[in-house]
Amino acid sequence: MDVPGAFAPGEYAARLSRAQAEMARAGIGALLLSTEAEVRYFTGFLTRFWESPSRPWYLVVPAQGAPVAVIPEIGAPLMARTGLTDIRTWPAPDPADDGTALLAEALREVAGRGQIGVPMGPETHLRMPLADFERLKARSGLRFGDDAGIMAALRAIKSEAEIARIREVCAVAGRAFARVPEIAAAGVPLDQVFRDFQRLLLEEGADWVPYLAGGAGPDGYGDVISPAGARRLAAGDVMMLDTGAVRGGYFCDFDRNFAVGPVPDAVRRAHACLMDACEAGLSLAQPGARACDLFEAMAAVTGARAGRLGHGLGMQLTEGLSLSEGDPTVLEPGMVITLEPWIALSAGSGMVHEENIVIREGAAEVLSPWAGSDMPEV
Amino acid sequence: MDVPGAFAPGEYAARLSRAQAEMARAGIGALLLSTEAEVRYFTGFLTRFWESPSRPWYLVVPAQGAPVAVIPEIGAPLMARTGLTDIRTWPAPDPADDGTALLAEALREVAGRGQIGVPMGPETHLRMPLADFERLKARSGLRFGDDAGIMAALRAIKSEAEIARIREVCAVAGRAFARVPEIAAAGVPLDQVFRDFQRLLLEEGADWVPYLAGGAGPDGYGDVISPAGARRLAAGDVMMLDTGAVRGGYFCDFDRNFAVGPVPDAVRRAHACLMDACEAGLSLAQPGARACDLFEAMAAVTGARAGRLGHGLGMQLTEGLSLSEGDPTVLEPGMVITLEPWIALSAGSGMVHEENIVIREGAAEVLSPWAGSDMPEV
Repeated sequence: MDVPGAFAPGEYAARLSRAQAEMARAGIGALLLSTEAEVRYFTGFLTRFWESPSRPWYLVVPAQGAPVAVIPEIGAPLMARTGLTDIRTWPAPDPADDGTALLAEALREVAGRGQIGVPMGPETHLRMPLADFERLKARSGLRFGDDAGIMAALRAIKSEAEIARIREVCAVAGRAFARVPEIAAAGVPLDQVFRDFQRLLLEEGADWVPYLAGGAGPDGYGDVISPAGARRLAAGDVMMLDTGAVRGGYFCDFDRNFAVGPVPDAVRRAHACLMDACEAGLSLAQPGARACDLFEAMAAVTGARAGRLGHGLGMQLTEGLSLSEGDPTVLEPGMVITLEPWIALSAGSGMVHEENIVIREGAAEVLSPWAGSDMPEV
Repeated sequence: MDVPGAFAPGEYAARLSRAQAEMARAGIGALLLSTEAEVRYFTGFLTRFWESPSRPWYLVVPAQGAPVAVIPEIGAPLMARTGLTDIRTWPAPDPADDGTALLAEALREVAGRGQIGVPMGPETHLRMPLADFERLKARSGLRFGDDAGIMAALRAIKSEAEIARIREVCAVAGRAFARVPEIAAAGVPLDQVFRDFQRLLLEEGADWVPYLAGGAGPDGYGDVISPAGARRLAAGDVMMLDTGAVRGGYFCDFDRNFAVGPVPDAVRRAHACLMDACEAGLSLAQPGARACDLFEAMAAVTGARAGRLGHGLGMQLTEGLSLSEGDPTVLEPGMVITLEPWIALSAGSGMVHEENIVIREGAAEVLSPWAGSDMPEV
């Protein structure tokens, strides 16, 4: 278990044991997992190589015993370092058969007559060619159904080791945000600020920066997913940077707003209102409250009911529950979530603020360095 | 069409027209696309928001007429900036129905009685929950089959505008590699080098750095996909950094090896041999040669036949053909590929070198700054 970023072996043993208890309850013979987060959840297999979509990777979690990795041979040395011993490889990519025969054999071997559970619900996808999935079904003779939501339920509750990771990367981003006055000022193009902010995150200890979004304008920003353009920051703009940085395989996801020189009172008031909304969300964020309750509480403060005002967070930038009108998920200790209220400033434009917290018995613990009501100025 | 990174509208019109000609030939009524590269290919929709796996995004390419976007409402402003006019949104994520009713309607509307083509072949995946795909099939009443390889074939041949992008990001990485002596030396932990090299890439103009791999050791490295550990570089090591940096939505993918102080002659000879192998690949890389021919030519120089010794490159770090024993793909002008020979130095350890080229009528054009036989020293 010497993969950088891996947890102590007990972490993976506990996850496996919880999964197998749920599988027994649901009558599932084996789980078939194919995405980065799913495979890493049970193994600690951490690599940026998933950026290459050319090769499928599979993990089979049996009803009893250790997981079986069915992976491209290029991954065998790293997978062996995770402590997994049953590692079956093929020379991928292989146009003749990209691992389906090997995978069918592994599934038949461990699942007996049980059904194969595949994550199929909200926020999932199957990371393998559909034609290969059809081939696998035909050649294995096994029954494939959904995983009864087991993976989503397990991953929603973070261990203390996971929470410590998220706390650590939140601190990294907090230090980088504190240095934004070094890189942003009126006259600097936003795309330059984006490059420099990623540099600050790396300097402060991020392993990599999978996500950065933001915007700038006199009335806030209309859109928080666009890439940065070459427009220069202007006095009176509010500039927002929202990062998903990673350290040890776990994400933070929070943002900060900055005043570029003096900004109108309406903008300062909007920022203070966003912080009030976060406080309202935070004070409700206790076991037993529902995701939709936090949505209502924050929307009541800002007057903006649209979209979702937060989400789960962990090995992915977003995962699990949504703080939205339609999500009745009940909060439990160990859930790490974002509070992300939005406020409108003009037609199609506004501001967003985001913090990261973990649900505890009693009051939630704040993981990101909670912002004050006064917007920092650059 | 004011999305940062978007091409001139003619680029997208030409892509659409080529796709529709192929669709007519294959009898496909509409393409259903769901991944970042597929959606961006026809629209220029460039955002890092795909890092969030919570929401599905769909593009419907009809047999005639303009594409239809069926996307989460959070993406509507950016999609509108691409020039697409038929944009249908829902408030995702919606646990009751995450866009399948809207998507079924759009598909029925444009496809008539035609089959829906979905990329299902090698290197693809469907980026939507499987349960939603089943729901879509049931509720649309349409027939879904594969896309007859249309997307893969179209994307394999790059336009001059695309090639210019890749040339530009290769130059960015070339400048960053030239500065590695600033950040690497005996005593520096490899994970610190990784952080600093990403910083150099950003300083030299990368928009972001989705991929960085590497390794270091006296006999090379056994594994080129592991995250960097805290081991300090030692005199006599060879250190390799392999980056997939992005600018304007296109990747470079090449590496460089560095000698940490004086290294054994065997290592220097291995590096020179890798460059000879790249030369052998380059001289064969002309229209009509097959991917497997380049594999054989490079493997004959290094004596290492394992794995794949190069691949296609573009909007993804890896895409399209493999320079491997089993890939008979015939090279055509406009294909951008990597040459990536491997050489063994000891049991389970060796070195890899990688360059990026584009196939032209006659000799290929080199896109990465071709390395010399002498390994640079830090």
